[in-house]
Amino acid sequence: MNKYALAIHGGAGTILRSALNPEVEAKYKTALYTALEIGHTILKNGGTALDAVEEVIKSLEDCPLFNAAKGAVFSADGTNEMESSIMCGKTLNAGASCGVKRVKNPIALSRKILDNDAFVYLSGEGAERYAKLCGLEFVDPSYFYTEDRYKQWIAVRDSQKAMLDHDGEAAYVRAKTQKADSKFGTVGAVALDMQGNIAAGTSTGGLTNKRFGRMGDSSVIGSGSYANNNTCAVSCTGYGEYFLRSVVAYDISCLIEYKGLSLKEACNYVVKQKLVKLGGEGGIIALDAQGNIELCFNSEGMYRGQVSSDDDIIKVAIYE
Amino acid sequence: MNKYALAIHGGAGTILRSALNPEVEAKYKTALYTALEIGHTILKNGGTALDAVEEVIKSLEDCPLFNAAKGAVFSADGTNEMESSIMCGKTLNAGASCGVKRVKNPIALSRKILDNDAFVYLSGEGAERYAKLCGLEFVDPSYFYTEDRYKQWIAVRDSQKAMLDHDGEAAYVRAKTQKADSKFGTVGAVALDMQGNIAAGTSTGGLTNKRFGRMGDSSVIGSGSYANNNTCAVSCTGYGEYFLRSVVAYDISCLIEYKGLSLKEACNYVVKQKLVKLGGEGGIIALDAQGNIELCFNSEGMYRGQVSSDDDIIKVAIYE
Repeated sequence: MNKYALAIHGGAGTILRSALNPEVEAKYKTALYTALEIGHTILKNGGTALDAVEEVIKSLEDCPLFNAAKGAVFSADGTNEMESSIMCGKTLNAGASCGVKRVKNPIALSRKILDNDAFVYLSGEGAERYAKLCGLEFVDPSYFYTEDRYKQWIAVRDSQKAMLDHDGEAAYVRAKTQKADSKFGTVGAVALDMQGNIAAGTSTGGLTNKRFGRMGDSSVIGSGSYANNNTCAVSCTGYGEYFLRSVVAYDISCLIEYKGLSLKEACNYVVKQKLVKLGGEGGIIALDAQGNIELCFNSEGMYRGQVSSDDDIIKVAIYE
Repeated sequence: MNKYALAIHGGAGTILRSALNPEVEAKYKTALYTALEIGHTILKNGGTALDAVEEVIKSLEDCPLFNAAKGAVFSADGTNEMESSIMCGKTLNAGASCGVKRVKNPIALSRKILDNDAFVYLSGEGAERYAKLCGLEFVDPSYFYTEDRYKQWIAVRDSQKAMLDHDGEAAYVRAKTQKADSKFGTVGAVALDMQGNIAAGTSTGGLTNKRFGRMGDSSVIGSGSYANNNTCAVSCTGYGEYFLRSVVAYDISCLIEYKGLSLKEACNYVVKQKLVKLGGEGGIIALDAQGNIELCFNSEGMYRGQVSSDDDIIKVAIYE
């Protein structure tokens, strides 16, 4: 016994091989490896799944390659607005926050919310006031700036503005056709600790050029993150609107609990059948209290990795 | 065939009989009756479940007795901040909004979001900008003021401030002990139309003296509202944090779809067993495409009502 396991993702989608030269690919793999090492050290030394999830996500948030905290995409207003959530499979306690603009590590704020069981879900300036009260590190909004994300935004903004000029309000409908390159990079982690508890967490900057305070699934318990020791821990990444409508993370849990599916069967059914039928591109990482791990996506690739007490070997991958 | 059905709630909780004299009770029942009449007329004339849900909720939002739009409770900042969501059981399209302060009917905004399939979930000022673009009616924030809610807020605020003076940050933890009277009144509706489609919607002002941009389940698809023609339409009311952690609305749907429970069995199991075990007070209204209706709560009372093509008789109730 005393198994432990950890899986992470750094976003799923149309990851163009042409855009990913060996040097860039190595950077992504190193970042994933580094995050897994951090979580692995915590878990093999008896740390909690919740701590592993939080620290792993912090590492990915600090890395400018991913669309979370440092490296977050830009909204239509030219700002970075972050969403995150975390859940404990033992207690079913959860913490989530959205509209965060100045907290260095949004997942740390969601963790503080989880630890204080007066509330579950905080938003905007109010959430930041709570972060301040908790003594979390604040940064100037310019901290989140990266040149790549800024260029992505300018390109998307200008193409949508052109659409708007021609089509008026109808263009908003077609904003959903925005292509994939600019929106992926949400990060997440799921962990099993030696006490047999599991946890899940997710953090994102959302969708490039997002308008009107648009939110995805990453801060929504049940859609972006879910954890329950009796079933599984899940973190999602992909086209948020479809994940919200499909309540993806809890759906996988229910298929295990109520229909008796295995973790693998449940993940495959939701990601490769239900989401595909609805048109929702993306992926999930999941594990259970027995140490089974699933990394499942219906897109071309998903930045991902895993390590467990089975062999203590850190594995990272991008494509199928 | 060509059945139709409608159920509504105006919040669940410790509705003190002592506070509800015959005159006040009559006011509540009249408001529920009026809302049901509006939806009944839409449905028996062949209107859609979505339209019935939206119009019924608008009527309850306009009524100062309930904690939604006019009559919304006050946050710790002395503002009214509204959350709502709506979902279509035929398409699984959904719309949700939170942090809304100036839109007269928040449910109308969530409906506009549902109709525009570019996004599902909008927040704060951005959501209001979208409402403006859609031509929705705006009001001065003072429109939402009601003397009763203001007095409730002052009482809660002062009691919590006293607590704070003594206990510092610990008081935030114990904010959850805030008693029930001030927080109930969330409104919701579920409907089945003659085309066999179902829909669900929910609208709330949240929790009296809520801090830090606190959000409940009312704007969360899967927790506060869920609809799927194959299973059921559900709208929730109660202690939001527990409903978020339990993903209540989708849980009922999954128990029907994956475990084969009847609507009644699923509602009872979630509300009277799972939620009670976790400590979550509240209730739900639900119906399915066969016209079955369930009104289920684990608190002392729930403002509620229903009408269907079985007998076209409008029924309203408050206590068990």
